[in-house]
Amino acid sequence: MVLARRPSGMADHETVRLEEHDVPKPGPGEALVQVRYLSIDPTIRTWMNDAPGYMSPIALGEVVRGGGIGEVVHSNCARYRPGDLVFGMTGWQDYVVADEGSGAMQLIPPGIEPGLALSVFGVTGMTAYFGIIDVGRITKDDTVVVSGAAGATGSVAGQIARIKGARRVVGIAGTPAKCAWLVDELGFDAAIDYRREDVAQSLRRLCPEGIDLYYDNVGGAILEACLGQLALHGRVVLCGAISLYNESSVPPGPRNISNLIIKRARMEGFLVLDYVPRFAEAQLDMATWVAEGKVKHAEHVVEGLEHSLDALNLLFTGANTGKVIVRI
Amino acid sequence: MVLARRPSGMADHETVRLEEHDVPKPGPGEALVQVRYLSIDPTIRTWMNDAPGYMSPIALGEVVRGGGIGEVVHSNCARYRPGDLVFGMTGWQDYVVADEGSGAMQLIPPGIEPGLALSVFGVTGMTAYFGIIDVGRITKDDTVVVSGAAGATGSVAGQIARIKGARRVVGIAGTPAKCAWLVDELGFDAAIDYRREDVAQSLRRLCPEGIDLYYDNVGGAILEACLGQLALHGRVVLCGAISLYNESSVPPGPRNISNLIIKRARMEGFLVLDYVPRFAEAQLDMATWVAEGKVKHAEHVVEGLEHSLDALNLLFTGANTGKVIVRI
Repeated sequence: MVLARRPSGMADHETVRLEEHDVPKPGPGEALVQVRYLSIDPTIRTWMNDAPGYMSPIALGEVVRGGGIGEVVHSNCARYRPGDLVFGMTGWQDYVVADEGSGAMQLIPPGIEPGLALSVFGVTGMTAYFGIIDVGRITKDDTVVVSGAAGATGSVAGQIARIKGARRVVGIAGTPAKCAWLVDELGFDAAIDYRREDVAQSLRRLCPEGIDLYYDNVGGAILEACLGQLALHGRVVLCGAISLYNESSVPPGPRNISNLIIKRARMEGFLVLDYVPRFAEAQLDMATWVAEGKVKHAEHVVEGLEHSLDALNLLFTGANTGKVIVRI
Repeated sequence: MVLARRPSGMADHETVRLEEHDVPKPGPGEALVQVRYLSIDPTIRTWMNDAPGYMSPIALGEVVRGGGIGEVVHSNCARYRPGDLVFGMTGWQDYVVADEGSGAMQLIPPGIEPGLALSVFGVTGMTAYFGIIDVGRITKDDTVVVSGAAGATGSVAGQIARIKGARRVVGIAGTPAKCAWLVDELGFDAAIDYRREDVAQSLRRLCPEGIDLYYDNVGGAILEACLGQLALHGRVVLCGAISLYNESSVPPGPRNISNLIIKRARMEGFLVLDYVPRFAEAQLDMATWVAEGKVKHAEHVVEGLEHSLDALNLLFTGANTGKVIVRI
């Protein structure tokens, strides 16, 4: 699946094109990997724009970039053996070659389900972990608000806040069912349905003493509402801005940046790529929490490579709960 | 001088009213202070609005709040002696009573000129010091940009950046004369005249590797331009937003907040009030730097209490260079 045309607004079926090619032949030190699962993440949409970012844009005609899990089906190297599951930037395609030397494809330990490997142990779980703990410096007694809370990252971020002793964890999501899931299944203290509630008003009601830590996945109007309810020395962790990724022109930003002065508050962006060397430490914590039932996750599985773009768009229509995965 | 009417936009002569009252009589433990100099600071404008902030608004009919220096003319306590100069929130008036118990009026050591006491050793100098060093965590090799650079805070902030080994210090100011002063007198490496230049373009030229530390006194379009040129792990110190203080409705914020994610950057607000316990440490450094000629300052003195509001407005028309002081 290659990028056929740069999207303006929501990507559509002119954005990508399915191409057929021969199965690549691995050379010495390489292995052939058959891609089984794709990790569908909002950031993929940002790579489709011809705009500067933290990675170069996907070129026109290039396979759509993205993480995934594959199975080694043929190997010319010692590191990868047939049957091994590996994680890496597989791209939206059926086969990819893994190079032993680069080590870019990481072996998934036996016994880890692919769904978990892509979510809580994968990039979204790691993003939640380092965002809440390292960037957000969560402390006991924090009132924490998470937007995009029913997504793969937000749902885990809120649960980690809970584990770390937050006084109150409030999620912001877009349907009553998602809100119920956050509170009833994941242990959030409350949830705000941003499509049916006045977010600023609900925040004043649910966080009367202010927000100590806001984990932002969405940007835009919800960021502004949360900035307006910051507590003294509040922290805003900028993880993503999904509300903006489909905008063809960038809308104005929050009008209340000055509230960061009044509240002596900090707003900080991060990319989980910078934390790769520390993933093992986080995955150990995650494994414990998953085993103890303290971190739960949801998957939204879409069948078939040809539906990868539909899967991506689920993130923007908000039709998913938890991690969106394409099974090939 | 009392607040007569809340201003909409720039304050005008209906905003304040001169009232005559009897000179107050100090009680036991108190001293009578004759106000000699007023410290004219942008934040005074924010207190004139009926809006939540870090301090309550000035009430209608109340003396305009502000810092100043006075001379003790009569004393019923041991702490203050006639002839002593004191600094504190004198307000815009001829006389104020100092209470020995509260200690709110601080003695100025002999030999410190009032102009220095109000600027480099006063709130604006302290704001520059803690903003650059503590919040901005300046390091050698930083490329530093300061807006409002010819003002009392900005001019000192840039000089401290210079002292701390910044690789490059760029000031943003509003006239050719101010820009020349920054470069020729204060040792800035370069200056941008925001009224005559495309700030974003000049920043790209002068800071080709990006801005490591942006000290923001102005907010608005200049904040957006600097966010657009941040370096990886850049820091934005939000000190003030003078471009917004006269706006009757708050304009949209920077469209490029997401750049904080791409650049893994931090934006943090602060108030110097939180650093009062550490002023002595900073004043010691400042005294050394002033003595060595490494920190220079400018004063813009306006004569007469009745011109205090004109003095305040100088900050917004940009007619001042350095600290604005009213001499009574």
